[in-house]
Amino acid sequence: IMSEKFGSDIVNHYTYVMCGDGCLMEGVSEEAISLAGNLRLNKLIVLWDNNGITIDGGTTLATCVNQAERFKAVGWNVMSVDGHNHTEIAEALEKAKKSDKPVMIACKTTIGYGAPTKAGSEKSHGAPLGTEEVAGLRKNLGWEYEPFVVPDEIYAAWRQKGIEGAKAEAEWQSRFEALPQDKKDAFNAYVKEKVPTQFFAAMQRLKEESAAVKEPLATRKSFNRILKETLPFLPQLIAGSADLSESNGVWVKEYHKNICSDDFSGNFIHYGIREHAMGAAVNGMVLHGGIIPVSSTFFSFLDYMLPSVRMASLMKIPSVFVFSHDSIAVGEDGPTHQPIEQLSLLRSMPNLRVFRPADTVETAECWEFILSNRDLPSVLLLTRQNLEQFRSDVSENMSAKGGYVVRHAKGERQATIIATGSEVALALKAQQILQQQGKDVAVVSMPCLELFEAQNADYRRQVLGTAPIVIAEAANLNSWGKYIKDDGDGVGMTSFGISGPYKELLEIFGFTPENVADKVSACIDRKKKLQHL
Amino acid sequence: IMSEKFGSDIVNHYTYVMCGDGCLMEGVSEEAISLAGNLRLNKLIVLWDNNGITIDGGTTLATCVNQAERFKAVGWNVMSVDGHNHTEIAEALEKAKKSDKPVMIACKTTIGYGAPTKAGSEKSHGAPLGTEEVAGLRKNLGWEYEPFVVPDEIYAAWRQKGIEGAKAEAEWQSRFEALPQDKKDAFNAYVKEKVPTQFFAAMQRLKEESAAVKEPLATRKSFNRILKETLPFLPQLIAGSADLSESNGVWVKEYHKNICSDDFSGNFIHYGIREHAMGAAVNGMVLHGGIIPVSSTFFSFLDYMLPSVRMASLMKIPSVFVFSHDSIAVGEDGPTHQPIEQLSLLRSMPNLRVFRPADTVETAECWEFILSNRDLPSVLLLTRQNLEQFRSDVSENMSAKGGYVVRHAKGERQATIIATGSEVALALKAQQILQQQGKDVAVVSMPCLELFEAQNADYRRQVLGTAPIVIAEAANLNSWGKYIKDDGDGVGMTSFGISGPYKELLEIFGFTPENVADKVSACIDRKKKLQHL
Repeated sequence: IMSEKFGSDIVNHYTYVMCGDGCLMEGVSEEAISLAGNLRLNKLIVLWDNNGITIDGGTTLATCVNQAERFKAVGWNVMSVDGHNHTEIAEALEKAKKSDKPVMIACKTTIGYGAPTKAGSEKSHGAPLGTEEVAGLRKNLGWEYEPFVVPDEIYAAWRQKGIEGAKAEAEWQSRFEALPQDKKDAFNAYVKEKVPTQFFAAMQRLKEESAAVKEPLATRKSFNRILKETLPFLPQLIAGSADLSESNGVWVKEYHKNICSDDFSGNFIHYGIREHAMGAAVNGMVLHGGIIPVSSTFFSFLDYMLPSVRMASLMKIPSVFVFSHDSIAVGEDGPTHQPIEQLSLLRSMPNLRVFRPADTVETAECWEFILSNRDLPSVLLLTRQNLEQFRSDVSENMSAKGGYVVRHAKGERQATIIATGSEVALALKAQQILQQQGKDVAVVSMPCLELFEAQNADYRRQVLGTAPIVIAEAANLNSWGKYIKDDGDGVGMTSFGISGPYKELLEIFGFTPENVADKVSACIDRKKKLQHL
Repeated sequence: IMSEKFGSDIVNHYTYVMCGDGCLMEGVSEEAISLAGNLRLNKLIVLWDNNGITIDGGTTLATCVNQAERFKAVGWNVMSVDGHNHTEIAEALEKAKKSDKPVMIACKTTIGYGAPTKAGSEKSHGAPLGTEEVAGLRKNLGWEYEPFVVPDEIYAAWRQKGIEGAKAEAEWQSRFEALPQDKKDAFNAYVKEKVPTQFFAAMQRLKEESAAVKEPLATRKSFNRILKETLPFLPQLIAGSADLSESNGVWVKEYHKNICSDDFSGNFIHYGIREHAMGAAVNGMVLHGGIIPVSSTFFSFLDYMLPSVRMASLMKIPSVFVFSHDSIAVGEDGPTHQPIEQLSLLRSMPNLRVFRPADTVETAECWEFILSNRDLPSVLLLTRQNLEQFRSDVSENMSAKGGYVVRHAKGERQATIIATGSEVALALKAQQILQQQGKDVAVVSMPCLELFEAQNADYRRQVLGTAPIVIAEAANLNSWGKYIKDDGDGVGMTSFGISGPYKELLEIFGFTPENVADKVSACIDRKKKLQHL
């Protein structure tokens, strides 16, 4: 992608993968190599350490795959070398660099090479070799130096590589300096992943318009409009979907163009039905730099790509994972497509920010925050169903605080309803019912619990109040335990969903203004009774 | 497996898979077909609906895989038919039944076949065709009947199939009746998956011995001993591991024999590094019946097989998923191998029982419960590190209640420490420290939160008490929010782990008797202060 934009003189590196027998058994390996094959990523070179051993023993215990044929079937070139012969490896790499397809180099090796009794055995996989084996290994390899002694000729060869590297870098610098100024500026903007001020102006306009018109809209459609206003200012944003481009709201027909094997000038990737590889590719592009990748699929399919989300969180990299169809309100597709436990899961994962905006304004606010804060990964959750637009004041990014009072109590707060996403409009309706009953409650929208918990104690106290708290969220409520406390309650999901029209489902599972109001009312009454005791 | 045991006259069915283009893009498809290829499952027949269309459009958007070559590379036979030609399909199926390998039949089809403008297009994938297209479709297919009218000749053909099926069943019954009585009994015992009483006697012996000897032991090793006592009585138990057979504690050298392509008389499956397919295979065998399959891997690799665990929970089938290395006490392997959020995740999933036993006795109790209650799926979590044996009374299966008081307060309970697994011994040490400070607390072990919550209110109140509750669990504590309440606290994980010797890690993250005692002590003091106000 960047080579296409800035020329193969400026972006001219290859990506190397070192993988083992186990890596090639994991399903994600097939997703990755078939995606790479279809995109004909000929700058990708995989070195397979073909030692025929995994932890349990010989690979024949579990596999009889002909890896060469397997890779060829998905559009790769394949070579084969003696993995202990450095000349063969070097020659294969030179050849691989000229390939018109991605290349897999099968490197036949012996695990624990040189160890007298443990070479070629799973015994040299994880455990230390032991004194005797190490002594024999030294003898077999002709290695006469003491431990930690690096011989002079190896030092010298290593330093020579450093000198060559410095030279290559200087040459790159002069090629870069020779570029026209506008190209240099564009490259730097790409690499710094900086969001231009025009983007924020566009977001402000969109929020103002949305607050004025108040047309009911699914947040996946809000996001689509937001993307449409983003793409003109952020050419390095590469969106993509696991075969749900339109459903997820990420495909913007005015600005998107497919990236495909014979044209890398586009900005959209069809990942196919390969969620795990999509997440891994997003992480890879983030680590590469100069690209702002965004993945998308249905929220319940998070399960298929969870290891990629965890890797992003472990590495604290700013991957952006978008998920639409974020609750049982998916409707007829039924329980396989209805997320229940996924919100609790993500909120239990360290280093991850989970955003569940409640209308177009909040979606834009979350998006602004995500693009401006590239220190941690983000998950953005979007609805399938239309939501009412409740925000009128768009002067401040309230979502950046994680949570805020949407509508205050008129007098003294008797209870607080905390809701996220589609349940905020529901909470506002419950508030009205309670008002008619003479019960005065506040409604808090909490688009990002992690950001809210990072606010100072004063702010949090002010938002949460001291009255009983009732949570409304169409999901398992485990992540809210500490907010509900002794005097609160929650309207959430305690079972899997069912198949049916989404409005009926919401009613069946208690997501009605009346039910929320009833629960709040009971909390208020209980607290009053206790105070009178 | 069952055909091997009871003869191909008695168990003689084939397994058919209908799959689409998207199914073959998911990584799990590669794990499954490469596993099936290595086991040479020649009674497995896959019909691939090769219509070249996914939701986003033509499959060429995302894939260029030569499926025939791909399947051949992993040890399959491949055929190709016109998927609209029933004779061709029937002939291919007959041929496939005689194959020495699993068979993939590529059925070339047109999606929306017969629809005038939407045939062969993604427009006929999800949305209704509409009146006009349906009218054209009827015309093109020569279908003249009204909606919901089934013509007589089709009824007749369908009924004929029923008659043939009844005949085949009667023939099977007479073959079965002709078996020797002991073979019939064995078959019935297999199919009913009933656990013999000798198993429970063996468990009782093992618990008594363990309670008497009190040798520190990792629960993965406890489980290994338990399996050793189980296998002689449960020939239909098929254990397996994703390349961690010994680490997970599931390999019992005295009784296990590998199942492999030329010998299905064994009772152990090397799944390879394929967690997702392992979970799916366990679900498949459970649905098949007559087999009690058990999977195993490290707990942090749950993420790779999560969709299979969710499917078991959705279907309420008694799959058993074992995970060892259940906390940061894994040690040097570091944060990628240290589960943090996984416990919260599983406890947020409906219909799933999560067991985290604390010593050998509890592990045996959980195992007895799992094998006796085949109504829901179970996850069994085991430690890598040694644990002290604390249970002395083994007269009742306390784990079957989900949670119980391990050691009562001597006088009035001032606080309750709830712990699971490796943290129970820790809690008992904290209790001693507090005792010396004149603070009287109870310790509750909670091996299965789901079972505890299914007990009656009296029992739960009696276990939990009314004093402040402090949770000790080396994981994210989100699932404990409602237990901690206003006056309680928790010692858990709020970040990812780090790499280091496990004892040092436990100290760094606060899993010391002193730290737990301090937290409890603070809760007691705070409560006293509030009562004096």
